[in-house]
Amino acid sequence: MGNYKTLKEEVYEANMQLPRLGLVLYSFGNASAVDRNKGVFGIKPSGVPYAELRPEDVVICDFNGKPIDGNRRPSSDTKTHAVLYKEYDAIGGVVHTHSTYATAWAQALKDIPVFGTTHADYLITDIPCALPMKDDYIQGDYEHMTGYQIFDCLKERKLDYKEVQMILVGSHGPFTWGTTVGKAVYHSAVCEEVAKMAYLTLQINPDALPLKDTLKRKHFDRKHGKDAYYGQGCR
Amino acid sequence: MGNYKTLKEEVYEANMQLPRLGLVLYSFGNASAVDRNKGVFGIKPSGVPYAELRPEDVVICDFNGKPIDGNRRPSSDTKTHAVLYKEYDAIGGVVHTHSTYATAWAQALKDIPVFGTTHADYLITDIPCALPMKDDYIQGDYEHMTGYQIFDCLKERKLDYKEVQMILVGSHGPFTWGTTVGKAVYHSAVCEEVAKMAYLTLQINPDALPLKDTLKRKHFDRKHGKDAYYGQGCR
Amino acid sequence: MGNYKTLKEEVYEANMQLPRLGLVLYSFGNASAVDRNKGVFGIKPSGVPYAELRPEDVVICDFNGKPIDGNRRPSSDTKTHAVLYKEYDAIGGVVHTHSTYATAWAQALKDIPVFGTTHADYLITDIPCALPMKDDYIQGDYEHMTGYQIFDCLKERKLDYKEVQMILVGSHGPFTWGTTVGKAVYHSAVCEEVAKMAYLTLQINPDALPLKDTLKRKHFDRKHGKDAYYGQGCR
Amino acid sequence: MGNYKTLKEEVYEANMQLPRLGLVLYSFGNASAVDRNKGVFGIKPSGVPYAELRPEDVVICDFNGKPIDGNRRPSSDTKTHAVLYKEYDAIGGVVHTHSTYATAWAQALKDIPVFGTTHADYLITDIPCALPMKDDYIQGDYEHMTGYQIFDCLKERKLDYKEVQMILVGSHGPFTWGTTVGKAVYHSAVCEEVAKMAYLTLQINPDALPLKDTLKRKHFDRKHGKDAYYGQGCR
Repeated sequence: MGNYKTLKEEVYEANMQLPRLGLVLYSFGNASAVDRNKGVFGIKPSGVPYAELRPEDVVICDFNGKPIDGNRRPSSDTKTHAVLYKEYDAIGGVVHTHSTYATAWAQALKDIPVFGTTHADYLITDIPCALPMKDDYIQGDYEHMTGYQIFDCLKERKLDYKEVQMILVGSHGPFTWGTTVGKAVYHSAVCEEVAKMAYLTLQINPDALPLKDTLKRKHFDRKHGKDAYYGQGCR
Repeated sequence: MGNYKTLKEEVYEANMQLPRLGLVLYSFGNASAVDRNKGVFGIKPSGVPYAELRPEDVVICDFNGKPIDGNRRPSSDTKTHAVLYKEYDAIGGVVHTHSTYATAWAQALKDIPVFGTTHADYLITDIPCALPMKDDYIQGDYEHMTGYQIFDCLKERKLDYKEVQMILVGSHGPFTWGTTVGKAVYHSAVCEEVAKMAYLTLQINPDALPLKDTLKRKHFDRKHGKDAYYGQGCR
Repeated sequence: MGNYKTLKEEVYEANMQLPRLGLVLYSFGNASAVDRNKGVFGIKPSGVPYAELRPEDVVICDFNGKPIDGNRRPSSDTKTHAVLYKEYDAIGGVVHTHSTYATAWAQALKDIPVFGTTHADYLITDIPCALPMKDDYIQGDYEHMTGYQIFDCLKERKLDYKEVQMILVGSHGPFTWGTTVGKAVYHSAVCEEVAKMAYLTLQINPDALPLKDTLKRKHFDRKHGKDAYYGQGCR
Repeated sequence: MGNYKTLKEEVYEANMQLPRLGLVLYSFGNASAVDRNKGVFGIKPSGVPYAELRPEDVVICDFNGKPIDGNRRPSSDTKTHAVLYKEYDAIGGVVHTHSTYATAWAQALKDIPVFGTTHADYLITDIPCALPMKDDYIQGDYEHMTGYQIFDCLKERKLDYKEVQMILVGSHGPFTWGTTVGKAVYHSAVCEEVAKMAYLTLQINPDALPLKDTLKRKHFDRKHGKDAYYGQGCR
């Protein structure tokens, strides 16, 4: 696997977690990881079932989404990943799935409200739903523009990509990221669980109110604040 | 298994995927595959549990649904499969299940609206629900007429069976097809997942709008259009 | 296991299917089978987790629910099973579970309407919900009276226990039966699946109509009528 | 593992049951068990995935939640457990999860009504939802005050912690307890199943009524009353 052996194995492992976590059916998803020193990222090949995927199938691309190593065609969503790596310096991995509940919220074109501490343990705002882009963008360089659909949504809402690490692409499905691809996978699983809980909350109480600010702050800070006391101190 | 060994094994393998994909309970489903050269198709025997099914149990039938090889009685839905093979030249396999969410839509007598790109990756129209047939057809050659219930529904809506490869038989459940039985199974799994997502979308937002046309077209074409760039180029 | 070895093994196997089918949590369910020649039935011991259950733990009781063989205390629902064996000559097995969707209908005190052919393949009426009994019956010989709650419900509705082999005990959960305990287990799984589909049908279309009579009749008769053509002819 | 080997193993085993029962995603939960003679309890370390947890990772704490043995940082919810052990003499174990349906009820800020006998087999009142505490408590010694949020809720409603062994912490999720940690785990699984059934009951019948008093009493007493006849007499 030449120069990219470690990166390909990391991308392979991350992709293989997606079906195990129940986040993908067939090939409906893709994970990528970046090597900032080399200025490349590795991504799942397009349309290859997880059961047949091997580390050597991972495609290495530059930040324009152009393949530079590997025998396969990269994921059709490659340019979206490329934009995120280019615009967001601090991220190490990106994951896209069509996980059932998060996708339903994306199809409903609704942000996922913060109803509880499970959500606030990860972010203190709603999970934003980026509305579909204009027709000429869709008809143009679609996957590239999907990257900017995400970028523009966070920017307009004045959200920091280091704090909000998951988003719904309207009518499509969730994208998540993290400092490593492992954390991006983790955020995909959290996003799906939070999406399911929020759906059920509204079914039980259509007038459910958002979590109060003090609880949002408390839960986020105990995991991610400067005096965080969750975990073993090495997150 | 005589002249039909390969066909029987293909049908056996396809049927065995149905319980693994969570699409059938007990014997609630059947898959068939055609051999166009010999003018026959193989289908699951009626009422045999998947755990006991063997390749040699597959029944070979002609395009009138008449068994011509095998020791078992074929699926009670055999004549429906026969009509589809007779009317639709290009299909290689047919699958029928009572998968939970797709069946619920069929029972609700509702088409499944295109709410997102997961759906548009496969078809750009609603998944049609063919309304129940007239009483004298039900009391007559029921399973044969079910084939024409499907055929007539597509015809009336001016839909092409090569583009719309899944349908709901009203009050009953989904039928899917494809150029191979493997693809027909795949479409059954996609139909169930799309049915679940559409159900959840309407629960979250009862006023959810259909996917915009440009997104429908983009997603369908990137997988199935003449310049498709999804997959490894051999779909 | 003395005189009842075969019966105990049959009851053991049937009980062990319940967790595998996802119909019970912990010890929330029980299956029994009858030996009409000996005038006894075997039933699961009370409160024993499935993981620890052994064939020799099965308790043999007479038709008054009195234990006559075995070292364990029988299921707390034993007298309900006893009433069903006494009143319904043709049944060979009885199963009670708290399976999630069927129990939700029982708690909602609603019959499960016939919305589709999956239901009509087994019975052509709604799955009846027997309303809770009078307070003095509850405070009296409760489990014995639960048997008569079932018996009276079918009688009042003029339903034949040979055609309607599943019922919801209101506020409690489903009971099913069959000519063998294997068929009673099968009916419990069908009841749960039909309950889930009917729930989803009403969520998708609150005005969903019952299945038309011709379809009810057609599907029931092709499996159970005198000219049935479903299965391999030995049901 | 020094003086606490047995306690650590008991806590380890209880924690490992949570993912097997489908009650936790990643590290979203914690189980603890007490040794009353030594005046300590063992609890899961904070943020450690279940797949990596080992018995020696369990942290031993005093009743103020202060770690006194072990190399890991204890669960961030440790002080909540500590309060429950201090205030409730008769409990041997405490479990906290973010199980999906119970958490949805907590997020909806609704008590779970007693709709059926599955619920009444364990408690005859609604499962209480303790409303979120005042802002200064949240900003102060939050996890300690969460213990008193639970304690005060039971006290205000005049509920006995020996009869009501499960509660929803509003906007957060369920806490359960029992005479042993094994029973606390069991109550977490029951709470989740009862939460799911109650949710479905209200979806099927928004006007569903609570279980009648005689049925509540009958079911609770046959399992827990002085003349209980459920189980093998050694609960």
